[in-house]
Parts: sequence; structure tokens; C-alpha cells
Amino acid sequence: MNQFWPRVLQYLHRTSVLPRRSLSACADHPAVPASTNSRHIKPKLLVSRLYLPSTLHDVGQDTRLSREMTCKSQRLMLKAGLIHPSNPGCYYYLPVAVRSMEKLMRVIDQEMQGIGGQKLDMPSLCSAELWKKSERWDLMGSELLRLTDRHNIDYCLAPTHEEAVTTLVAHQANVSYKQLPLLLYQITRKFRDEPKPKFGLLRGREFYMKDMYSFDASEEAAYETYELVCHAYTRLFDRLGLRCVKVQADTGNIGGKLSHEFQLPADIGEDVLLLCGNCSFAANAETMSSDRTECPQCKTGTLVKSKGIEVGHTFYLGQKYSRIFDATFSNVQNKPVLTEMGCYGLGVTRILAAAIEVTSTEEGIRWPGLLAPYQVCILPPKKGSKEHKAVDLAEELVHTLEETLPGLRGEVVFDDRTQMTIGKRLMDASRLGYPYVIVVGKGALKESPKFEVICQQTGETVFLTKDGLLDLLGGVETV
Amino acid sequence: MNQFWPRVLQYLHRTSVLPRRSLSACADHPAVPASTNSRHIKPKLLVSRLYLPSTLHDVGQDTRLSREMTCKSQRLMLKAGLIHPSNPGCYYYLPVAVRSMEKLMRVIDQEMQGIGGQKLDMPSLCSAELWKKSERWDLMGSELLRLTDRHNIDYCLAPTHEEAVTTLVAHQANVSYKQLPLLLYQITRKFRDEPKPKFGLLRGREFYMKDMYSFDASEEAAYETYELVCHAYTRLFDRLGLRCVKVQADTGNIGGKLSHEFQLPADIGEDVLLLCGNCSFAANAETMSSDRTECPQCKTGTLVKSKGIEVGHTFYLGQKYSRIFDATFSNVQNKPVLTEMGCYGLGVTRILAAAIEVTSTEEGIRWPGLLAPYQVCILPPKKGSKEHKAVDLAEELVHTLEETLPGLRGEVVFDDRTQMTIGKRLMDASRLGYPYVIVVGKGALKESPKFEVICQQTGETVFLTKDGLLDLLGGVETV
Repeated sequence: MNQFWPRVLQYLHRTSVLPRRSLSACADHPAVPASTNSRHIKPKLLVSRLYLPSTLHDVGQDTRLSREMTCKSQRLMLKAGLIHPSNPGCYYYLPVAVRSMEKLMRVIDQEMQGIGGQKLDMPSLCSAELWKKSERWDLMGSELLRLTDRHNIDYCLAPTHEEAVTTLVAHQANVSYKQLPLLLYQITRKFRDEPKPKFGLLRGREFYMKDMYSFDASEEAAYETYELVCHAYTRLFDRLGLRCVKVQADTGNIGGKLSHEFQLPADIGEDVLLLCGNCSFAANAETMSSDRTECPQCKTGTLVKSKGIEVGHTFYLGQKYSRIFDATFSNVQNKPVLTEMGCYGLGVTRILAAAIEVTSTEEGIRWPGLLAPYQVCILPPKKGSKEHKAVDLAEELVHTLEETLPGLRGEVVFDDRTQMTIGKRLMDASRLGYPYVIVVGKGALKESPKFEVICQQTGETVFLTKDGLLDLLGGVETV
Repeated sequence: MNQFWPRVLQYLHRTSVLPRRSLSACADHPAVPASTNSRHIKPKLLVSRLYLPSTLHDVGQDTRLSREMTCKSQRLMLKAGLIHPSNPGCYYYLPVAVRSMEKLMRVIDQEMQGIGGQKLDMPSLCSAELWKKSERWDLMGSELLRLTDRHNIDYCLAPTHEEAVTTLVAHQANVSYKQLPLLLYQITRKFRDEPKPKFGLLRGREFYMKDMYSFDASEEAAYETYELVCHAYTRLFDRLGLRCVKVQADTGNIGGKLSHEFQLPADIGEDVLLLCGNCSFAANAETMSSDRTECPQCKTGTLVKSKGIEVGHTFYLGQKYSRIFDATFSNVQNKPVLTEMGCYGLGVTRILAAAIEVTSTEEGIRWPGLLAPYQVCILPPKKGSKEHKAVDLAEELVHTLEETLPGLRGEVVFDDRTQMTIGKRLMDASRLGYPYVIVVGKGALKESPKFEVICQQTGETVFLTKDGLLDLLGGVETV
């Protein structure tokens, strides 16, 4: 106890800074206001209050952006008020985008922790000393953002953390072979001084990445871990409904013996892929001589070209970094042996943009269901219209959905801008891409009330009773 | 659709990269393995597998740390394997600390969103141009970490984001008075080139901070918002069981008219507080002449000195930044008017360390309940002991707790290091500070089985039946 606690406690009880109740009673504070049975609880998530500054600069008028190469996802995200440009290659992620990013991070957490990954968080400031040891201080050239602190010590802003994580593991005395494999990952902001940032979140200078590092006792075990992570990646993209291709890749400046990329096929992709027309062979074109057309695996198929956005990358590193930083473990004979490493990246902000790129229309965002910032948007009738009194039913519907379907809590937005026509608000809803838009109009006032439901991912419109609606939305998966 | 989709789809269906099922079926993938009714599900959260490198350097032997000023929270966090030093003032946050940090961030999200805060995420790289406009480029001196990109453009690593957020809001055309107050916040890593980093996470160079910015239509409305945020802070600390003092503070280089700090009384606190012995007056000593002893509010009380750790800071900014960046809104007459601003910080990593500092013993961490990385640790008997067969009961207990009490899912750790005595494992559990430690020993094998439960926050030990245990743990609040 601090020496002056009695004095402070006396003070705290006397003043109104803290309520006069015991500390244990603090647990009673409700995180979110408890629901009541009152039928007329006003909706809280109002479109009029969402910070969606879509009236920012027109993209065409912004001189900086007009100099940059743009793409569909970038235009749609700017238009819908999800991002706003800052410095070249840097963006503000606005509230609706943050919701989606946080969902993506949760899915990544589930998949990484599902294979035993443990989440840590490493500093962005990495000492030059560490990077010089691996020789990447020079190798990275002008892609590395460098700075000097007040004591004239050199640092870089880490674009990746092989040096940092290996030195961490090397510092631990007596890691036993029984504790391996060790899978450590983080989801943090990374920095890379791209010569030409472009395509919005697809190629930026400051971005979010998930990077995992594995430590194994043998080459064989390390290959098993490598496959385990690749499967987790496939499952992740599968859950998101994104059809990725896993291709052989170059190991680049990360180094190592084996590498694969997870590529999302897209016209604006910067990577050229070679896919065999006959077998499962797939490779990044940079791993092969450019004029090759015969498949090296089955020898009979012809290679066809495709373009892709790299959304994930895996590397089998072997002892490249463990040797430099002396990251060892104690084997069965209690002798120190260098660990076999792998590293595995996922571009978090890039996956978000790439998903929007491949699933959206030219006019509006379409989300992988799990990543939709909000699942449902409810449109009450226009103020002063004949069906105006249905507004109460619309408000009630928000409450019913959130109470009946716990997965939809916080996922139902109410478009209270009733001075606007349904048509105008539908256009906004289409632009933002809520998977389900519910129009509460004259059908809701009939003896057997019906709601108009637009499923934006399929483009279908159906008219459902409240029970039908609950059935449909009960199947929505959220994260 | 991309031009080459048909080709790619054909490829994907032929190869084994993706399972042959429809995209809509992706939603069936279970996020977390579903529970079954089998009694013998092996526990998954094993202490032997937790990355808790407490066998890192002994603090005393580390030359860098021995040069630095240390404190209790830092020693305890190092010893328990929660953090590991990187560069001066920079730490690795290890997995158990990350769990706690994420809990704290969720509580902060709840409280900030509870008062209408919307979460965004701003770049760490801030252009010198922006900071020169506010004159803080020079004012911040050597505390600001600066760098130059490949095009020789100057940037800083933002320690705070008044410039960035105000320019964002200024870019939006036609913000209506109806849309105010606007409360935008983020929880991100911040940078400050501290001359002498010390006390672990209490004074670092890279740390997590929650920063919120408010935009209001009038001075009156802005003061209301200021009070609203202060109340949310008080509620937050109250939920954490931390007894903060709200004191008048200096506005420093942030500027503005009014400022308060939320101080957590502690011996190692670097701030000196003056508290009135008679009324509610409280101030940071730097706001007053040092020899003052009479309370300026009630004029009769005497000011007493106390030390505190600053964990939160609020500023009423007025038009200081909105004027510089021309952040306006349209008033009732549709005329542009400068917004009235406030800004509000919470040191996320600092709160974590400060909480450990004030609630722990010299030997072990004691957590504010909500922030405990894991709520429960179950200790099965030692291998080869007389009561060894109780190990099955211990495993079963993990399963029962997680199934019966949904709030405890992922919160129950199983100490499978049965080669160690109960006593040794209890010492580790005490060091890490799980709020509830359950020893499954010979009492569990009796006809009416009892479990030994150690409530580490109170130091009490009780013997409970399974039902009693469920009752006790059913009251544990998690976030």
C-alpha cells in the first residue's frame, strides 16, 4: 500500500469524483444498457449520426489522387466515406471501415489461435543494430523508413519482424523441445516507403499486417507447421468467400528455401500468375523464365497467365535467422540446437480492399458477409408520406431483431434521414453495401404485415412476414 | 467480374486449393470447435504451452535495465513473462499481456461508444507541413521523432493527432450543426522521444493511447461534451476498480483553456498533486505556486501533497485547432462557423502498468478483475502422488466451467505441469495473479467432493462443492 493511501481514500470519499460504494460493487456497472420490455426503444445506430464523410473531395478533383493510379475499391471506399487520403500511401480509416477491419482481425485471430498461434505485439521502432546483423539494413535500401533518435541512435520503422522475434526467442534460456512448435503472431501497423503508392489500401506506405513466426525442432516438424499455416490461410479465405490461388513464389529479401503466395485473381492485380490447364501447378511468373509455356509438374499441360493481388505470403526460413541471432532450443539430449523457422504474412488492410475490389459492382460495395460493417439497414418511410406511421413499426423492428437474434446486436442500422425519399436512401444503402436492406413501407401497415427485404449480395428482393424475416436473418453469421 | 474469372474458377475447382463447395456454404465453417457432450475433452489452454518467457534475463543482470529506473509493475511484468525489453522505452508485449490489453481496449471501446464516440484510425506518419501549420513542429522539440521519406519529405511519428483529425473534419463540406457533437477516437500506438524512458510501460517511447477529439457547435455544448467525457472516464476507472483523482491541470503544448488529469495515487507517481483537506479541490502542483498551502476554492482548507500517475488527460481546446485548419460547420442560418473542440487521452499501456503498480503485492501481480488475462487457473495433482487420479476430475472441471458459464470461455487455464509440486505451481499462479486458483486434490476424490479455491485478490481460501464453485465463478464479470 502506498504511504499516503489513507489520506487519498479520505479525499476520494469526501469528494464527488468517485461514487461512495465499495470497489466490489463496480462489477455491477452494465457495459451496455440492459434491454427492457418497452416496445418503443428508439434505435441508437442512426445513419444521420454515422461518421461517413462521403461529401469529402470529389475524387476527380483531388489533385493528389488524380496523380495516383486509382482502382475500383479505392473509388468505392472514398465515395462511401470509409477512407480518406492523408499523406501519399497513408489513409485515415474511418469508423465504418474500422468496424470491418476489426471483424477481419477477429477472423484472423480465430484461425491463428485455432492452430495454436499466440498473439504478441512488437515495437515498430527497430534498432539499426538488429537489422545490420541480418544485413537487411542495407539490403532493404530506400524501402525502409529510417530515423534517428535524440541520442543519434538509428532505427527503422519495421516492415516485418524476423529480426525482432528471433532475438526475443533467442533471449529465452532453456526453451525445451517439448515447448515447440512455438507460433507467435501479431496484427500491427507496418511501414514501407513504396516508390509509387497506388490503388488505395492495396499498395500503401502504412498498412496493417498479420505476421506470424514459427519455431520448430526439426526441418520435418517445420514443414508440418508450414502446411498447417497454409491450411489455416485457405480456411480463412474460404470463410470470407474469397477464392484465392496458392502459388509458388520467390523468397525475395526475406530469404529461405520455400515460399508461397495467396493470390486473389483480379484485373488490377500486380502479380502475373501461371496456372496449369491440366494439373494443380500454379506459380508466380517471377519464379520462372518468362517464355515458358509447358507445365513443369505434369509436363503435358499448358501454362495460362492470370493476374492476382497478393493477400498472403508464407516462407519456410529454415535456420536463416535462428543462426544469425542464435535462437536455440534444448533437444532430447538437453543439447542446444538451432530452431527451424517459418514466417507467414497476411495483408489485413489489403485483404479488405482486395475483397471489395473483387466482390463489388461499379456502383456499390459488396462485402464478404463476415466483413460487412453492419449486416442490416432498416429504412422507415419518408416523413409526410401516406405510410409515414409505419415509422414506429420500423423502430420496433430494430429492437426485435437485436433482441431475438443476439448475433445481430450492434449490426442493425436505422436510416432515420426521413426527409429523404426511400429511393435516395436505397442508393446510399447500395453504395455502402449492407447485406440486407429492409424497407418498412405500406406493406408493413397491412393486416398481415410484410417487409420488403433486399439481399444486396444476390440482388434479390423478397417480401417477408416478421417471422420470415427472423428466419432469414437468423442464418446470418457474424464475428 | 474479372475477364479471366471463368479460367480461374475452372482452375480452382480442379485443384485442391479450395474445397469444392459453394461460396454460400463457407458460412458453415465453425469459428471455434463446437462443444460436445463427451466428458473427457482435454483442456486446450495449457500452462506448459503458454508463451511466458519468465526465464529471460534476470532483471538485475540486464545491463540496460540496471541503468534504467525500475518499479514494481515493471519487475513483476518482466518476471511473469508479460513484457520483454527491446530498445530503450520500447517493449515487446507478450501474449498474456496482449490478452489483458485487449480487454482494456474493449472496456474503453464500450465507454467511448457509450457516449457516442466513433472509432477511426489515423496514420502514424504525419506530414511536417501539417505540424508546421499548428507551430508544433518546432514547439515539440526533440520529443518528436522525425523522419524523411525517399522524396525528402519530412514527417513525424505522431504522439497525438489534433492536426490530423482537425484537417480531416475540415475537409468535409457542409457538416451540419445537426451532426454535432461529433466524437472521434482511436486506440493506436503513439511515439514520443522521451529523454529518459523509465518504469517500464509507465514512461516509454512507443506506447498505446486512446485519443478522442470532440467537435461542437458552441462553447456551451462543448463544455457539456467535456463533462460527458470526464464522466465516462470516471466510470471507466470505477469499473476497473481504480480510484483515480481528477485534478486541474496545465494545458501544456496541446493548448486550450481548460484541462484535467486523471491521476492514480502511487508512490512512484511523477506528478505532485495538491488535495484540499476540506473540500473537493484537487490540482496538479504545476498549476499553482509551489508554496501555496491555502485552498483557493474553500479558502479554509489546507492543501496536502500526494503523488500520482497520470492515466488520463482532458483538454478543452476551443477554436485553437479549428481556426488553424478552418474546421467549420453550417449553423441554423446555414452559415459556416468554427467548431469548438476538445481532446481526451487515456494511456492504455500506462493504465495497465499503473493498475498492476497499485493493486499488486511485491511478489505477485494482482489485477483489476476485468483486466485479468485469465480468470481461473486449475491445478491438477502432482504426477505419481496419492491423489493423482483426480487429474481427470480437474480436466472435467475445465470443461464444466466453460460450458456452464459462457463468460468464462477461454478464461480457464489448466496447469498441466504435473511434474511440479502443487506448491511450486501455486507460486507461479500467485506471480501471474489469476483471480481464482482451484486446487483439485484429495478433497475432490471424497464422497462429497470439494475443491480448494484461492481468491487471490482477497487472499482468502475456501473449500467448495462443484455447485458452490459454479455459484462463485458465475459472478465473475468478463469483457
